[in-house]
Amino acid sequence: MTATKAEAAAFMAAEFPQSKCVLEDLTPGTATVSHAIGHDELRPGGTVSGPVLMTVADVALYVAILGEIGIVPLAVTSSLTINFLRKPSAQAAIIGRCQLLKVGRTLATGEVLLYSEGNSEPVVHVVGTYAIPPATLTTQ
Amino acid sequence: MTATKAEAAAFMAAEFPQSKCVLEDLTPGTATVSHAIGHDELRPGGTVSGPVLMTVADVALYVAILGEIGIVPLAVTSSLTINFLRKPSAQAAIIGRCQLLKVGRTLATGEVLLYSEGNSEPVVHVVGTYAIPPATLTTQ
Amino acid sequence: MTATKAEAAAFMAAEFPQSKCVLEDLTPGTATVSHAIGHDELRPGGTVSGPVLMTVADVALYVAILGEIGIVPLAVTSSLTINFLRKPSAQAAIIGRCQLLKVGRTLATGEVLLYSEGNSEPVVHVVGTYAIPPATLTTQ
Amino acid sequence: MTATKAEAAAFMAAEFPQSKCVLEDLTPGTATVSHAIGHDELRPGGTVSGPVLMTVADVALYVAILGEIGIVPLAVTSSLTINFLRKPSAQAAIIGRCQLLKVGRTLATGEVLLYSEGNSEPVVHVVGTYAIPPATLTTQ
Repeated sequence: MTATKAEAAAFMAAEFPQSKCVLEDLTPGTATVSHAIGHDELRPGGTVSGPVLMTVADVALYVAILGEIGIVPLAVTSSLTINFLRKPSAQAAIIGRCQLLKVGRTLATGEVLLYSEGNSEPVVHVVGTYAIPPATLTTQ
Repeated sequence: MTATKAEAAAFMAAEFPQSKCVLEDLTPGTATVSHAIGHDELRPGGTVSGPVLMTVADVALYVAILGEIGIVPLAVTSSLTINFLRKPSAQAAIIGRCQLLKVGRTLATGEVLLYSEGNSEPVVHVVGTYAIPPATLTTQ
Repeated sequence: MTATKAEAAAFMAAEFPQSKCVLEDLTPGTATVSHAIGHDELRPGGTVSGPVLMTVADVALYVAILGEIGIVPLAVTSSLTINFLRKPSAQAAIIGRCQLLKVGRTLATGEVLLYSEGNSEPVVHVVGTYAIPPATLTTQ
Repeated sequence: MTATKAEAAAFMAAEFPQSKCVLEDLTPGTATVSHAIGHDELRPGGTVSGPVLMTVADVALYVAILGEIGIVPLAVTSSLTINFLRKPSAQAAIIGRCQLLKVGRTLATGEVLLYSEGNSEPVVHVVGTYAIPPATLTTQ
């Protein structure tokens, strides 16, 4: 069972209504998300705020997993390890590209690279795991 | 060189103007931060949003480090590992307690436990590292 | 269902026959493990090798979990985040103290601080998660 | 300043004399290491032991960094986050492929995927950081 890009985008809009994340692409095992950067996303000094970066990574991972297992609202983030590599641009959108590493019965793990749009050097690396509720699985 | 609670609180207010984090306590090697939870911090289903949790942990760690090394604006988060343990309450403030593990010349590492106020079981565990710019150190 | 210190020690001896880890203490939610340090555990320069440190942390976490859920041979490490804080002594045993953070139905998470015996400053911090097989749970 | 494959292999042999890791390839930003698997590397049940997997990842990361910054004996692992994805084969060598994410002045970060030789699905994902001593940098 899988979710299409349209299904995943509709679910994201309902689940993260405050989020400005836009689902750009969804293919088997990967997802690409973008997030516009403006005044609200910046900290003094022109740095994109950490929580915005985390949001993009978390959403990219979530959507990539939905693409594999279908719409599972109760899947929850179990762990995230975030490495901050470079200062993101204050003038460019943040692009998050997720690559799944393993989708198991109860855990799904993937990594996300975040970029400032137009720059090929990653600004953040995230590896994270979602827990998939057993109840969900028995009903599939 | 160290920062007092008042100095650290003033710096936080300037550095994270959007943040609702309140510095509750600052002692050698520890910091306690609180964050009120209302509509803006919740996701559908009554879950405190992940980025809010990350913010509280990041601020608690930052402030604890400032308490040890003084006001160093250029210290930046290098890595964060976040384990989500339990669903936080939608009705209680989030409390973050940081315990520093090591403050070295260029890296400072600490852990933060987040709680829903009034509940002794942690909802999130974070371990993270800040990079302290060498330039800062040579001028101190 | 829980395991006693004797049951956990017997299981460890069978499961990790090459390991020199000794179970020192097991109480609800905590475990303490020691590992003698000699020539085999050192790298050039007198540093305790990273894999030895990881082993002590992994065993302490595993045993603490067994203490809570009983002998579950199929529980496997899902993730470990290791922060190396200080150089361990080449002349002292490594002591690992695990504190569980959450024992859920399918995941158990805890943290471990490693010390050089006789020194109160931790040398390594580890936070890790074990996956507990669903089959185990349904038969209990 | 960089190290060649031969220089890095000679340094590894001196620094990790107990290690059976073989440096297979070293290119700008990447390194590939292999480790034969036999009785000594297995746990009961035919699983490759966690510390062996950690060693391969740590060595691959270390060598990839040496390839970029030259032979720096005092570089030390600062943090490792290890996600165990699949059970490795007991009959195949472990192959570790490191891709550097950032080499800065004081920190270098990279990720390593471990495979059982002949299988394209990764068994372990590691992201880690080395601290590069400032003293080293001032003498270069």
